[in-house]
Amino acid sequence: MSARYTVGVDFGTASGRAVLVDCSNGHEAATAVSTYTNGVIDQHLPAPDGDIVLESSWALQDPADYLRVFQETIPALLAETGVDPAQIVGVGIDFTSCTMLPTLADGTPLCMLPELRRNPHAWVKLWKHHAAQPEADLINEVAVARGEPWLERYGGKISSEWFFAKSLQILREAPEIYARADRLIEAADWAVWQLTGVETRSNCAAGYKAMWSGTDGFPSAEYFAALDSGFARVVDEKLSRRVLPLGDRAGLIDQRGAGWTGLLAGTPVAVANVDAHASAPAVGVTSAGALVMIMGTSTCHILLADRAVTVPGMCGAVEDGVVPRLWGYEAGQSGVGDIFAWFTEIAKTPHDVLEADAARLRPGESGLLALDWWNGNRSVLVNADLSGLLLGMTLATGPAEVYRALIEATAFGTRVIVEAFEASGVAVDSIIACGGLPERNTLLLQVYADVLRRPVTVAASTQAPALGAAMFAAVAGGVYSSIAEASGRMTRPAQKTVAPDAEAGRVYDQLFAEYVRLHDLFGRGGSDVMRSLGDLRLAARR
Amino acid sequence: MSARYTVGVDFGTASGRAVLVDCSNGHEAATAVSTYTNGVIDQHLPAPDGDIVLESSWALQDPADYLRVFQETIPALLAETGVDPAQIVGVGIDFTSCTMLPTLADGTPLCMLPELRRNPHAWVKLWKHHAAQPEADLINEVAVARGEPWLERYGGKISSEWFFAKSLQILREAPEIYARADRLIEAADWAVWQLTGVETRSNCAAGYKAMWSGTDGFPSAEYFAALDSGFARVVDEKLSRRVLPLGDRAGLIDQRGAGWTGLLAGTPVAVANVDAHASAPAVGVTSAGALVMIMGTSTCHILLADRAVTVPGMCGAVEDGVVPRLWGYEAGQSGVGDIFAWFTEIAKTPHDVLEADAARLRPGESGLLALDWWNGNRSVLVNADLSGLLLGMTLATGPAEVYRALIEATAFGTRVIVEAFEASGVAVDSIIACGGLPERNTLLLQVYADVLRRPVTVAASTQAPALGAAMFAAVAGGVYSSIAEASGRMTRPAQKTVAPDAEAGRVYDQLFAEYVRLHDLFGRGGSDVMRSLGDLRLAARR
Repeated sequence: MSARYTVGVDFGTASGRAVLVDCSNGHEAATAVSTYTNGVIDQHLPAPDGDIVLESSWALQDPADYLRVFQETIPALLAETGVDPAQIVGVGIDFTSCTMLPTLADGTPLCMLPELRRNPHAWVKLWKHHAAQPEADLINEVAVARGEPWLERYGGKISSEWFFAKSLQILREAPEIYARADRLIEAADWAVWQLTGVETRSNCAAGYKAMWSGTDGFPSAEYFAALDSGFARVVDEKLSRRVLPLGDRAGLIDQRGAGWTGLLAGTPVAVANVDAHASAPAVGVTSAGALVMIMGTSTCHILLADRAVTVPGMCGAVEDGVVPRLWGYEAGQSGVGDIFAWFTEIAKTPHDVLEADAARLRPGESGLLALDWWNGNRSVLVNADLSGLLLGMTLATGPAEVYRALIEATAFGTRVIVEAFEASGVAVDSIIACGGLPERNTLLLQVYADVLRRPVTVAASTQAPALGAAMFAAVAGGVYSSIAEASGRMTRPAQKTVAPDAEAGRVYDQLFAEYVRLHDLFGRGGSDVMRSLGDLRLAARR
Repeated sequence: MSARYTVGVDFGTASGRAVLVDCSNGHEAATAVSTYTNGVIDQHLPAPDGDIVLESSWALQDPADYLRVFQETIPALLAETGVDPAQIVGVGIDFTSCTMLPTLADGTPLCMLPELRRNPHAWVKLWKHHAAQPEADLINEVAVARGEPWLERYGGKISSEWFFAKSLQILREAPEIYARADRLIEAADWAVWQLTGVETRSNCAAGYKAMWSGTDGFPSAEYFAALDSGFARVVDEKLSRRVLPLGDRAGLIDQRGAGWTGLLAGTPVAVANVDAHASAPAVGVTSAGALVMIMGTSTCHILLADRAVTVPGMCGAVEDGVVPRLWGYEAGQSGVGDIFAWFTEIAKTPHDVLEADAARLRPGESGLLALDWWNGNRSVLVNADLSGLLLGMTLATGPAEVYRALIEATAFGTRVIVEAFEASGVAVDSIIACGGLPERNTLLLQVYADVLRRPVTVAASTQAPALGAAMFAAVAGGVYSSIAEASGRMTRPAQKTVAPDAEAGRVYDQLFAEYVRLHDLFGRGGSDVMRSLGDLRLAARR
């Protein structure tokens, strides 16, 4: 029998990439990337509607860009490898989340209708669209007031990035768009719909971003009504209560999908996944105790556990949300690689130069300490109003010292998260890093190992989300009976494991104690200066 | 009668400059600069002794560089202007302080003796030599324990920069140098001695840097004995109790001095002055209520008052220390232009570019707040262990925002000092800026006016210390009977006065309130993190 392959398609922030994977061993036979023509739309709508200017903290995308990913990447994989489409037994998709859009009943995005395209609310709201903060605030207030039971699964606070915050913003700011929307849907689910012609909803996206759970479903109509009377029936009118588990087959590629991709009609397509969550099986994690850090511009942490507990400041805990029969905990650091990139811009010095110089410093030698909140703090403080802090500068402080302090600060931020898990009784037995950052930055890995005082393993794949999607495709395609089996067979050995240095760790213990003091001082109400500065900045711009 | 001139010689950190001034109107007829060959010696001794490496925080100078200033600049003034040496009726000197050295009884610096030149303690200790901190700590502890009455004149704390801290360091670390030193002397007084052949001591240097006062003299032998038994007779063995007031004639140029300078032997030389203090009359200030800010790498504040009160964190209050019959208060910010320069290095962007961009921002718009402690805090906290802080960064923060926040932080630091004076009952009626910084940086002046909420006047002379020295020379030379008269005649009208903007001031009031909260939190014991980081840095370098 000839080799069997699956295709994983990873929809990122700036581009989509597809990878063709050998189901027998996880070998990545080929990769193809399609950069979004309209990228992140955060200033004004694309031509010919460039006169429509967006308010600050908006971030939209164009669903036509997503379709081009299918049209450009999958045919390229086939052409490059010469693999027969008949050998491709499944397609899996992962996506940024919560990235969502309003559509007609047939899946047509409202922004593709000529009469609606000039309304920004008709477009895709990208995960980092942060303009729904008032709606998130309301969602949290009402949930607290009503004692909603689901709130604690999300660390006690819902983010402005999430599904119902974005949906409620549409209702309140563009009721005509809300009314026209037959569906409000995660882009991940929408992409599967486009390939198969069948609308499905993923339990991962619904669980992590739409307050859904397998046992309780969505929040009640009474709750939604308390947010806005027009929002009472949002689930029944705009969503679907038919939520499918990861690894299930969502449908089969239809004629249109086959035309776009060059795959055979009838090829199974897996239920959509969220990018970070797809990474866990891709790095071999399908059982409790391993923390997966997906490190890029930001870091997402995925931890599997066999129990449900409340961990303060988590993004969410969802049963079956990553793999079946386990609780998947998600935490996050909203700025990591972004902060390092920020400083390379300030210092007009490339990463590799700063890293080489910073690597020559010993722990503590910079004299600096930072709070890594340039993009707010997701876990464990869940406060987007927080901002960065750098302390300890002297006239002798150089760029390498600052760069190292920023790396250390993000490591301290991770340690806060690890300790929050452990304090809540969720074990962290091992740490596995993936994503673009650990690949490029060896100093970073050593600092993390030293700060966390345990080994950090770097996963083999440099495109873990797409590989994970391909693994779920192998389950949906019937090659394997479970994601655990698929992961066991398709995960390649780790690239390397970085061992902690005990001496460095002792110094970092002291620095971490100082970090925690500053963290609590500025993050837990001791000093409100970051909010005050933010308010003054907004006032100055008015 | 032909015009009469005086020469003011200003010995700075990197160079000396002489200015030829018309006594009738203060016109600066010519200026000449001599850059020190050996500059600031802070890494190792000059050749051929470059193998002698200095410890961190040492800063030495070569007294031969000072003599070259006389030899190069004054002849250049004469050559350039064609002024007849007979028209030059006096020479005045100002110097950085406390800059001090050990000499033989004839004034020969110990570092000029072949058998001693390889000992760093034989050299000039520059004002910013900070290695005598243990001695300063001891000086303060013992003074507090003994209830020394002079301590409160210095804001309750003596700096490591000062005369007896440096002297005690010599005794403790190089007793053989201390024993060989017939004299320990301020470089200012030493320079006058070199020109005249007569050793004198200035009441300004002694008052501000050697705990001397006109009424009480130096601290007691019992006090010095309590520091170290070998230090008991330091004043009688190594100094002089004959301290002369500013404006007095210290002596006349001798044959050697005439040979160096081209001036006539017998030309009067005024008692030496300290650079910042000489600036007050140079900008027209000889009466109570005007705050003079000498702004460069650091800022020195001089304020005249008709009363003696204790102002917390001042560098010193000396009766007759600036002009006769008034109390001269000195305060300081240990990093100002130095901090801006630090950031231009980090950002690899010139001052003028950063300033132009920063000037387009409104108050509060940067979203940032800094504590201007890159070089510690002199007034009002008197703590060299403090370090810089920058807070409020987001991924959108650019270099101009940081640059503006640093300027604002130094303005807030000045406001803390102004408010400390006023809270102690010392009026601040007007503010006059001089030095290199206000000359170049118009944004800085506006920010200071807005933060201080009062006009800031920029003095006419760009070389105020040298002009002030020339004014004292005119008094010593008999042209005027008092420094007030000399200043009245020789000060030219101010360059400009920058008016405060009330709207900006209201925003800055809010930012200043936040600054004060952070200032007190990190500077008054709420958080000890800066000291902890400093300790960890030292430990890492060991």
